[in-house]
Amino acid sequence: MPPRVVGVAVLGLGTIGSEVVRTIQAQRDLIEAASGYRLELRKVLERGPQRAARADLSPDLIVTDLDTILRDNDVDVVVGTLGGDQPAAEYLQRSLEAGMHVVTANKEALAKHLRRLVEVAHQHQRALLFEASVGGGIPLMAAYRQLLLTNRIDRIRGIVNGTTNYMLWQMAEQGWSYQQALAEAQRLGYAEPDPTADVEGFDAVYKLAILASMMLGRHILPDTIDRTGITGVSADQIAQARAQGGTIKLIASAVRNGNDASLRVAPEVISNSELLSHINANFNAVEITGDRVGPILLSGQGAGPLPTASAIVSDIVEAMRDGKNATIPLLS
Amino acid sequence: MPPRVVGVAVLGLGTIGSEVVRTIQAQRDLIEAASGYRLELRKVLERGPQRAARADLSPDLIVTDLDTILRDNDVDVVVGTLGGDQPAAEYLQRSLEAGMHVVTANKEALAKHLRRLVEVAHQHQRALLFEASVGGGIPLMAAYRQLLLTNRIDRIRGIVNGTTNYMLWQMAEQGWSYQQALAEAQRLGYAEPDPTADVEGFDAVYKLAILASMMLGRHILPDTIDRTGITGVSADQIAQARAQGGTIKLIASAVRNGNDASLRVAPEVISNSELLSHINANFNAVEITGDRVGPILLSGQGAGPLPTASAIVSDIVEAMRDGKNATIPLLS
Repeated sequence: MPPRVVGVAVLGLGTIGSEVVRTIQAQRDLIEAASGYRLELRKVLERGPQRAARADLSPDLIVTDLDTILRDNDVDVVVGTLGGDQPAAEYLQRSLEAGMHVVTANKEALAKHLRRLVEVAHQHQRALLFEASVGGGIPLMAAYRQLLLTNRIDRIRGIVNGTTNYMLWQMAEQGWSYQQALAEAQRLGYAEPDPTADVEGFDAVYKLAILASMMLGRHILPDTIDRTGITGVSADQIAQARAQGGTIKLIASAVRNGNDASLRVAPEVISNSELLSHINANFNAVEITGDRVGPILLSGQGAGPLPTASAIVSDIVEAMRDGKNATIPLLS
Repeated sequence: MPPRVVGVAVLGLGTIGSEVVRTIQAQRDLIEAASGYRLELRKVLERGPQRAARADLSPDLIVTDLDTILRDNDVDVVVGTLGGDQPAAEYLQRSLEAGMHVVTANKEALAKHLRRLVEVAHQHQRALLFEASVGGGIPLMAAYRQLLLTNRIDRIRGIVNGTTNYMLWQMAEQGWSYQQALAEAQRLGYAEPDPTADVEGFDAVYKLAILASMMLGRHILPDTIDRTGITGVSADQIAQARAQGGTIKLIASAVRNGNDASLRVAPEVISNSELLSHINANFNAVEITGDRVGPILLSGQGAGPLPTASAIVSDIVEAMRDGKNATIPLLS
């Protein structure tokens, strides 16, 4: 059987977008052997000439406006690797409206506009997939969506931000202060120069909003979620938790209460008898409890360009395979 | 959009088959809301009149020969919940040949006949799915198959037998002998009256054969896998492991070596710094290491009728959604 060729456009050559481009080029044969689909890069949206030059791509692949991509009949899937809310969210919506499948890692745009984006995907009978938005390369959405088919999800508890997990882990292991741990995380490139999104819990809130929306079947807006970051966690508190047989972790949790759920992101003392207490370094883990399967835990390195790009490529294949059926059900 | 109706036949009303029947009946609306498919039970193959009576099904659903099912044009998916090698494997093959999708939890039949079954599924353009065969309700295959799309899998290490994990855990926690732990596992229904398949590692070998075949792209026959069970594990060895900061677990492992892999099932001392050492009671866990995503761990309650039936129902939906594309690639 000849492979089915898939035209891919990538929006933004940041760290993730560049790695998606490299993955498509370097892994083409492996992906084709495993899936039957041959991925071809058709267009890349990038307005920064330096980034475009660094990517080592044929210049005719680079475009600076979205419309050129939306008019290209050879593009089947748009990969949204721009960060932030706007224009990223608008670009995702317009891509769906133009009849393209959309794959994205942008948790902020999803968390804020999930209901609308899912609705547009259904209207235009296209796939909207976002495996890479939570847990990076962990095949979390694949697992979660399978569980959702036959379970009422009663609880979710996750360590979904690798930066803060690394910092809390080093504070516990090395006895460091918050400031020391932050400096080290920044030195390693785990934390941004402005670490607010991670350390104040915004990143975790976006991810929880996505998971909770799927759990409850309605759009949970991120600003309705209780949020406490880790800036107030002291070395003393960590030592005290340890003396009591526990570890402090930044936990994103959704606990069902009828058709509702209590939602929060906050540091919690996790007993050493729980698997979540043993999730170290910059790893992520999510525990999903279904009424039929009980607690299921998935863990792995949550971030990094390589795992994230892998998750995006898996979504491209799934979009082609399942089409509109791959999109989550409409949210109320 | 009206739901798409799916005709299901179940082969065998053992513990798992009965629970599949109950799940289809009790969860129909939830499954339909989540998937768009409405499952309808069309036929059940069961030769034991008592089991058939206990299932509380309309008598015209019960048949005693496979041909009646294979001739039924309203059956889309056959669920193979008969255990053992034959006739279970032959029934799976004949169902595929008759143009039906096949979903099964039978790890022994799969491990011994995977190449042939996959080949027949491809020839007849049907789905062959087996999420429930390894790790029960853990969405392991969904996750593993996503990883396989974009990763070379370099290593698999798993606790894939809940009975022996329960026994080793109790030996460590209670200081019990092997015989005491076996008696308690039998009392709880975790171990069979004849526990050979679990304690001698056959069950784990079947599961590893399936995982390793997918890792290497060729059929790994179970009798080519090194196998040591837990009958020789003493309370002394467990105490010694603990004194050294470790725990004895029955580990199924596949470690890649070029295009080959060393494969074995054997008790191993696992350091307490590893997540696998904290998988307790009758839980299962599998750690899959890809060259791009690094180590991914999935854990959960591996067995039990409820989780296993959930996994089977998810596979039914996937078979309908993806059809022949859901079948793993041909094995050499």
